[in-house]
Amino acid sequence: MRGVVLNGPGEVSVVDRDDPKIIEPTDAIIRVTAACVCGSDLWPYRGVEKLDGMAPMGHEYVGVVEETGPGVRNVKVGDFVVGSFFASDNTCEICRAGYQSRCVHAVAMNGIGTQAQFARIPLADGTLVATPGTPDADLIPSLLAASDVLGTGWFAADAAAVGPGKTVAVVGDGAVGLLGVLAAREMGAERIVAFSRHADRQRLATEFGATDVIVERGDEGVAKLKDLTGGLGAHSVIEAVGTQQSMMQAVRATRPGGHIGYVGVSHDVHLPGDELFFAAVHLHGGPAPVRRYLPELIELILTRRIDPGRVFDLTLPLENAADGYKAMDERRAIKTLLRP
Amino acid sequence: MRGVVLNGPGEVSVVDRDDPKIIEPTDAIIRVTAACVCGSDLWPYRGVEKLDGMAPMGHEYVGVVEETGPGVRNVKVGDFVVGSFFASDNTCEICRAGYQSRCVHAVAMNGIGTQAQFARIPLADGTLVATPGTPDADLIPSLLAASDVLGTGWFAADAAAVGPGKTVAVVGDGAVGLLGVLAAREMGAERIVAFSRHADRQRLATEFGATDVIVERGDEGVAKLKDLTGGLGAHSVIEAVGTQQSMMQAVRATRPGGHIGYVGVSHDVHLPGDELFFAAVHLHGGPAPVRRYLPELIELILTRRIDPGRVFDLTLPLENAADGYKAMDERRAIKTLLRP
Repeated sequence: MRGVVLNGPGEVSVVDRDDPKIIEPTDAIIRVTAACVCGSDLWPYRGVEKLDGMAPMGHEYVGVVEETGPGVRNVKVGDFVVGSFFASDNTCEICRAGYQSRCVHAVAMNGIGTQAQFARIPLADGTLVATPGTPDADLIPSLLAASDVLGTGWFAADAAAVGPGKTVAVVGDGAVGLLGVLAAREMGAERIVAFSRHADRQRLATEFGATDVIVERGDEGVAKLKDLTGGLGAHSVIEAVGTQQSMMQAVRATRPGGHIGYVGVSHDVHLPGDELFFAAVHLHGGPAPVRRYLPELIELILTRRIDPGRVFDLTLPLENAADGYKAMDERRAIKTLLRP
Repeated sequence: MRGVVLNGPGEVSVVDRDDPKIIEPTDAIIRVTAACVCGSDLWPYRGVEKLDGMAPMGHEYVGVVEETGPGVRNVKVGDFVVGSFFASDNTCEICRAGYQSRCVHAVAMNGIGTQAQFARIPLADGTLVATPGTPDADLIPSLLAASDVLGTGWFAADAAAVGPGKTVAVVGDGAVGLLGVLAAREMGAERIVAFSRHADRQRLATEFGATDVIVERGDEGVAKLKDLTGGLGAHSVIEAVGTQQSMMQAVRATRPGGHIGYVGVSHDVHLPGDELFFAAVHLHGGPAPVRRYLPELIELILTRRIDPGRVFDLTLPLENAADGYKAMDERRAIKTLLRP
């Protein structure tokens, strides 16, 4: 089969890879209908995360089940399925508490690489959620978004305790931040402030529910937010970048007793204990347990209540994956969908 | 009046200080019935926190109202009162959300110094809670504990989402950690693991409700805790020290999705973003909003349901304050009560 690999910083290519095979009885093989490039794929693409040789890429996917191992019960050949970027058994104590991304048997899908024609899905019963029938073609991008960026933005809003009457600020205007805006709207936030300096992203943020946009970032951005909130800061802050600046912006944008949901993969971040202590905020985040939210998100998409697929502003054949990475790296695209 | 001051590291003395006066109409003056030495007083005592000249000491207190400003409505001369270590108006938006220690008008009581015969209490209506009548003398230590260490341990347990069925681990066997154990028991925790290497503190922890004691600390202590919890770690971890080691012990002792309540005043702590991210824990803490809990805690004490005053294992006249600091610094005492 054909699949995307990264050979080194900036070096994306599409190569022949071995067709995946059932290894464990709990595996399934899917034919990938759509995959995409994640903001987190840009960390190794930019050389910030070091790779140890050639790596298969991709961890977001929707597809059709081609084959199942003898232990698989919940999905069957022909099912259209959505999974998340960590395979999970969905039965262990950690999964049952809603933290499937930290399942005791978790398998990271980016080690498998779903930017490919086929993919092996470990722990298929726990990981995959089948849609009732085959979804309309125009819903594919939204279902694919549920696989990571929507689920991640949703978790961030949940972790930030978004709810009715709350003022929510969103740090980061990538796909996750934008879908954090959408999630905050769905959870009933009263006011949603998007930090964004890019006109196209500001527009989409507003369409997703942002009531205010602040173009400044860092402490300047925080000062603007305080102006909007009687000097107190937001009740809930979604952090969707993962840098020292974005984390400190989130901490400083949150009122005492408020909540931060952080989902930007932390790179070279060190939180100063004293500032965090006196901030008196709630901090929760990490790799989103997307599986927890998938049934609800799929329902919202199939009933056309939400349209998260709009974050895909570039669609390319799998063979052109390199162009998709480049467009995201240069911020010409918010998110690239790849069709195998 | 007589009052305790710190002249420099290790240099505690009791000196003549000006009698406090009503400054703002919302002030009250109290005659201090009992004050005490806090673990956090040891930071400047040990020179870890730098002082700018001579500093009045003390921020925990119970006493009798001597005088009130013209704007005071809720307490009157002769009332026996308990306050907390931050004066707060208890009416602003932050107070109403339960974060009185970060009140928009908060005044730190350690700038006033309650290890003294009298003390000015700013924002008396918001800060002080009067008991019905004068409490029995033997309840004074417990009411004094409510002023900080009990309220702080209680907040830590609350921030750590302690509840029925949960396994709770407590890092730190000082007065706050020990009262975190007591709070966890009151909140219905199923299992309470105290990290402690001192026999007297282990004993008190057990009497307060600890079901297990681990003498190892750091990663060794974490390994022991994992052995007790099926490899997963605790649901709830109370951190009551404030060092890099204790914070990382708390992070590593918590299962994915679990909660850390941290109340040790952070000194030279830097939390590594990547480890925190993949830990997927909830982190909440800071200066405890003791005022939120005071009515409930006073009730539990007056009805003799809890006996937090047992953390005071040394009682001295105010004039002997220096001995009280020394005994705590050398770990010969858990906590020193001072009688003016």
